[in-house]
Amino acid sequence: MKEAMHEYGFLLSIAIILLSTKFLGLLTQKFKMPQVVGALIAGLLLGPAVFDIIRDDSMSFINNVSEIGVIVLMFAAGLETDIHELKKTGGPSLLIAVLGVLFPIVGGFGIAYLFNDGNGTDTSLFLQNMFIGVILTATSVSITVETLKELGKLSSKSGNAILGAALIDDILGIIALTIITSLASPKSGNIAFVLIKIAGFFVIGSLACIGFHIFMKKWCSNKGKDLRRYVVASFVFCLLMSFSAEVFFGVADITGAFFAGVAISNTPRCKYITSRFDTLSYLLLSPVFFASIGLKVVLPKMTGEIIIFTILLVIVALITKIIGCGLGAKLCKFSNKNSIRIGIGMISRGEVALIVANKGEALGLMNTDFFGPIVIMVVFTTIITPILLKLAYKTKSVPELEIADAASST
Amino acid sequence: MKEAMHEYGFLLSIAIILLSTKFLGLLTQKFKMPQVVGALIAGLLLGPAVFDIIRDDSMSFINNVSEIGVIVLMFAAGLETDIHELKKTGGPSLLIAVLGVLFPIVGGFGIAYLFNDGNGTDTSLFLQNMFIGVILTATSVSITVETLKELGKLSSKSGNAILGAALIDDILGIIALTIITSLASPKSGNIAFVLIKIAGFFVIGSLACIGFHIFMKKWCSNKGKDLRRYVVASFVFCLLMSFSAEVFFGVADITGAFFAGVAISNTPRCKYITSRFDTLSYLLLSPVFFASIGLKVVLPKMTGEIIIFTILLVIVALITKIIGCGLGAKLCKFSNKNSIRIGIGMISRGEVALIVANKGEALGLMNTDFFGPIVIMVVFTTIITPILLKLAYKTKSVPELEIADAASST
Repeated sequence: MKEAMHEYGFLLSIAIILLSTKFLGLLTQKFKMPQVVGALIAGLLLGPAVFDIIRDDSMSFINNVSEIGVIVLMFAAGLETDIHELKKTGGPSLLIAVLGVLFPIVGGFGIAYLFNDGNGTDTSLFLQNMFIGVILTATSVSITVETLKELGKLSSKSGNAILGAALIDDILGIIALTIITSLASPKSGNIAFVLIKIAGFFVIGSLACIGFHIFMKKWCSNKGKDLRRYVVASFVFCLLMSFSAEVFFGVADITGAFFAGVAISNTPRCKYITSRFDTLSYLLLSPVFFASIGLKVVLPKMTGEIIIFTILLVIVALITKIIGCGLGAKLCKFSNKNSIRIGIGMISRGEVALIVANKGEALGLMNTDFFGPIVIMVVFTTIITPILLKLAYKTKSVPELEIADAASST
Repeated sequence: MKEAMHEYGFLLSIAIILLSTKFLGLLTQKFKMPQVVGALIAGLLLGPAVFDIIRDDSMSFINNVSEIGVIVLMFAAGLETDIHELKKTGGPSLLIAVLGVLFPIVGGFGIAYLFNDGNGTDTSLFLQNMFIGVILTATSVSITVETLKELGKLSSKSGNAILGAALIDDILGIIALTIITSLASPKSGNIAFVLIKIAGFFVIGSLACIGFHIFMKKWCSNKGKDLRRYVVASFVFCLLMSFSAEVFFGVADITGAFFAGVAISNTPRCKYITSRFDTLSYLLLSPVFFASIGLKVVLPKMTGEIIIFTILLVIVALITKIIGCGLGAKLCKFSNKNSIRIGIGMISRGEVALIVANKGEALGLMNTDFFGPIVIMVVFTTIITPILLKLAYKTKSVPELEIADAASST
């Protein structure tokens, strides 16, 4: 029975994740919060931070499913994106992203400067402090995308600005990470090479997307064919773009997936395709993804000084994104309300910050005492983002929301 | 880049599998064969038998996805099953299964008796020859289910008889395997204990299904709720039943999944639930499952004598199931046409026979020379089954088929 448990344990893990994310999601919805909050909390509860229920031998499978989960999530966001609207917000998105990177770097550096004693590291204190800043630049757009979808605001003007800015933020984050790691250990990367690869992704990726867009437009006009082939072909393109972005160009796979989604938006079968991915997502992939964020959290042991550092770090994480991105939006003539929404939409650090922190620890760029506070900052910003977003978008639209919910569930 | 390739290679593998199974599936459909034939061939081509394209570091993920794939396939078959119809075919199914186990055991023993020189084994020749018979009893119902679905015949009278017989065949197979392995190595299992566990599965599993059926009937009558919760709850139940069947009762996970499907059939939201699982299946799970069967095939080196043995083994595999199961059906007053259909529906050995053969090899129960022929027998019976089934069900119903296809794709 032990052997069977080992071999089939992943079935139990998936069952537990689906049940708990849905149950807690419906519970948080009862309290007028987005369902994604419940899914995140479910992951925390199931993981080593609280009950430690999910077996280790399922984790590699769960990690792979969650990777496909976030890819499909961003792909779906691309499918719903109006490319003309996104282009229009291109300028503002760039400014929002740049300020949303600069403010956290400065804020992170400042707070690390006050507390860092260099424990567990072998690089210069300057680089270490800078690295805390780099961690704070990370934006996990997936939480925001899911929340905006639930609120029916993904293709609003502010939604587009957030999407664009988060994607650019990802690029800027890669550049910042490469600069600092190449300063710390010259072997780990060459900044010119990284920039060339990013440029290559934009050129080759855009060409691939334009080509696929034209192909789909022609192909999908065939009447009377079984529609499944279009959905499968779209998925294949999405996976290939994600894979290529990550492996050949060093860009995040979700950026590739988003590009793929945009390529398919505005083709004749887009609506049908979107609805099928919606099912794939909610029935398996996205619960596993959102739970997996919490599953990775290990709560640290805390001392007095570290608790103070944690509180300050959380505050800096919140404020630098709200002010940085909000200021960027405001400078681009967004209304006050929309500027705040955009700032809030960029708060969530999610799994991205955890990945960056792990990389820094491996390179000796991080004071090991800081790992705990960073985890707590990630958990806090990730769970608070959908709650704040919901409040920021709250007008008198409660009945409208229910209609949107009902529509998305049929 | 190598590291990234290792980490993200599974995305490429899934993309290649989806693309090739769909492409070859459409191709075989062009030649009036079921799409599942194309998917099986795709797996063979991608695997070590031909091009060896799929990377080893993706295989653990692919195996897990394909396990969920076959579970969802059998769950969906359960959803479409009319429990009253299945009960009616209970008696015939039992006889079909029993004869469909006896004939292959005798046939397998006979042919092994003629060729076996005991190479690579340390058990008695009698048990070894018997084991070839046990391997031949295995029926892989998944191929037949998928084909019957494509043909729109899953809930026909003969379809129900095949389903029931295949499930009973699975139970008989476990019993036969347990008997022979416990004779070979007394530690590996106790037949009384196995029988008690199987009985326990039927009692406890049935109670769980009745309970869940009543619960779903009540719960689904709530109007105006988001329907997703019903689909997710069904999936959780399916996974828990599969897991429990395998881990606690030693019964195949797909039998548990089928039970779960039957429990949900005839509840108010069954049609909606079925359509969502259909999407989950064709968009990710079932292409991976069917390809994975071919991916496991390694073609052996052959000598003259082994080639003759292989040809005879394939013939025995075909004939014993067609005659055994067909005779069972005929004795139960099925028409000649339906008896042949039922016999053909039970031919496919699929992944089940491979698993049994592996187990036998590990226990020293198998002449290692026989492994190659068994693989070829599995490939042949698996690919020929959907083709023969399509021929056996061919009447003048071509237009009807197209309607069924169109309906299932919307």
